[in-house]
Amino acid sequence: MTHSNTQHSALTPQDIQAVSPALATYTQKAVTERLWNRPELLRRDRSLITAAALIARLQTIGVPHYFNVALDSGVTPAELSELVLQLAFYAGWSSALSAVPALQQIFAERGIGTDQLPEISPRLLPLNEQAEAQRATAVEQNFGAVAPGVVEYTTELLFRDLWLRPALAPRDRSLITVSALIASGHVAQITYHLNRAMDNGLSQSQASEMLTHLAFYAGWPSVFSALPIVKEIFQKRSGTAAQKTS
Amino acid sequence: MTHSNTQHSALTPQDIQAVSPALATYTQKAVTERLWNRPELLRRDRSLITAAALIARLQTIGVPHYFNVALDSGVTPAELSELVLQLAFYAGWSSALSAVPALQQIFAERGIGTDQLPEISPRLLPLNEQAEAQRATAVEQNFGAVAPGVVEYTTELLFRDLWLRPALAPRDRSLITVSALIASGHVAQITYHLNRAMDNGLSQSQASEMLTHLAFYAGWPSVFSALPIVKEIFQKRSGTAAQKTS
Amino acid sequence: MTHSNTQHSALTPQDIQAVSPALATYTQKAVTERLWNRPELLRRDRSLITAAALIARLQTIGVPHYFNVALDSGVTPAELSELVLQLAFYAGWSSALSAVPALQQIFAERGIGTDQLPEISPRLLPLNEQAEAQRATAVEQNFGAVAPGVVEYTTELLFRDLWLRPALAPRDRSLITVSALIASGHVAQITYHLNRAMDNGLSQSQASEMLTHLAFYAGWPSVFSALPIVKEIFQKRSGTAAQKTS
Repeated sequence: MTHSNTQHSALTPQDIQAVSPALATYTQKAVTERLWNRPELLRRDRSLITAAALIARLQTIGVPHYFNVALDSGVTPAELSELVLQLAFYAGWSSALSAVPALQQIFAERGIGTDQLPEISPRLLPLNEQAEAQRATAVEQNFGAVAPGVVEYTTELLFRDLWLRPALAPRDRSLITVSALIASGHVAQITYHLNRAMDNGLSQSQASEMLTHLAFYAGWPSVFSALPIVKEIFQKRSGTAAQKTS
Repeated sequence: MTHSNTQHSALTPQDIQAVSPALATYTQKAVTERLWNRPELLRRDRSLITAAALIARLQTIGVPHYFNVALDSGVTPAELSELVLQLAFYAGWSSALSAVPALQQIFAERGIGTDQLPEISPRLLPLNEQAEAQRATAVEQNFGAVAPGVVEYTTELLFRDLWLRPALAPRDRSLITVSALIASGHVAQITYHLNRAMDNGLSQSQASEMLTHLAFYAGWPSVFSALPIVKEIFQKRSGTAAQKTS
Repeated sequence: MTHSNTQHSALTPQDIQAVSPALATYTQKAVTERLWNRPELLRRDRSLITAAALIARLQTIGVPHYFNVALDSGVTPAELSELVLQLAFYAGWSSALSAVPALQQIFAERGIGTDQLPEISPRLLPLNEQAEAQRATAVEQNFGAVAPGVVEYTTELLFRDLWLRPALAPRDRSLITVSALIASGHVAQITYHLNRAMDNGLSQSQASEMLTHLAFYAGWPSVFSALPIVKEIFQKRSGTAAQKTS
């Protein structure tokens, strides 16, 4: 690790061009100009998805560029900081820490001090007691005897603490989490978290476009592995919606 | 990211020896002398497989050494450049970009300019209209309503553009793609791409040796997770071959 | 790769604080003070699990800190060296090599020379001929025709060589391997190796706590993907144990 005495600078188009002029052109035309301007998702949402994918896949080379893009697209320093915290739990502690040196430099360059970052112990959002009791009971019954430590921390640290921190809207926290799951191939965990994301306000069209965006940043195979699960979720939810309105 | 003012040098045998003399010896005897000289695959093919695994798993430490090996084993600068482009789509944009700084330095050291790299918009290889129509229809029926953006880009950017670029032979492009899939654990995507690779000329013996080679570079577990799928593909294809000749 | 002329220094709490004061606090309170002091596993075991997860997920930023923690927690230089060798095979060659620069520096700083590291060709531990014959036969029948090279190397290099090296106790070698499998999402390979670990002396309570520890270092999703498999193994083994005592 070389953070202490090194500049974390973004790759330039010229760097990419020296290795693959075609890749430089696709980056400019297909990604920067076209993908990022598709109306199905705001640039702010795309920034959250991209940042989550970069950390989940440890693509630290993209942090200097895309974390600056995030700040220029309406993601606040507090939200970006909280994204790193969320991914410590959902991508692994040291994967999140890998983004620290470059983000530290960005915050320093922009004069962003800790006063602009989320409190350590904020007043938490209200807990949906019923949904949480349901989740906790299901996990306890399924895995309580196998991994009591995991089950205990999941309730205490994640669902009665992290997920209730106000620095990210629940919908954004879910969007980041689902993006990280898809980017790191954790297909079995998508169902719970994508449903939660949609319960928290992510529309089907936004979820669909999240996949389009992730195809580029997590790679096509990650998205194709997620598609059957996402399809099933969309179908079940539209069945439920139909029932509710009938 | 520290590319701008840093030398990207390969690990030396002495570096490895200082940490694990046994690892230095296995590297020399089992890998460099034995694995790389097995007759089942050319060193050129092994270089493509290794480069794909390094990018798919973000093992940038191996890029300086193995990308030089590739150039010394008959992989052209244009092919290596195109490999990076292919993996932008199949391993994620920033995973491919992670190889740029070291490869940029290698190209500079060898005096390889962009005139030796693939054109941005070359004349494309002819499209197999029937096979592509079949693929596009299957994907559209399966996922068209779930992720229209993914489906659209898959056809337009991948199968009617990237896969038709002449800078890599279709067999080599497939070999790289399958290697990346196995190296990153995308088991569900192997069937389509390994069949495509074998349709494009990868023999069963070469596909089998690809697994041997990947055991070292992607790790034993990646290969053992892929084996059941590969076995099924080999069996189905030999069934088809038997039918055809009977 | 920048190892040659760079210092590999650990992230400081101040670095983390500048990006996320909450993450710095969770790191101190929930991880350093609480997780690492839970009585279910020794700090020595936690160090092995953490080191394995860091290499398996290529989180090289954590190597300077946690490999020093390992040496301060009773892991010997020889064991740490051998861990890197084991993971060359189980996480991929270049993933293991990614830990070399920082570990090389740690060994130099502590004056640890190659005389303290495992021999290249030590006298091997005795082979359990019956268990190995069973394993080899099963793998040969299943995959011998598909990937003869993989099957041959698996027997020769892994089970008749690497696994018999005395520099790590078989239980520790298994603990590292299972941790790497879970950390990199190789769910299908857990059954064989967790059973082997438990046959070699890892207790169910230790295996369970390994999951708690990995939740932090490999991320919650990796552990939740492993839980159903681990549950099944625990159930089958307690069934067998019950049978044996009845």
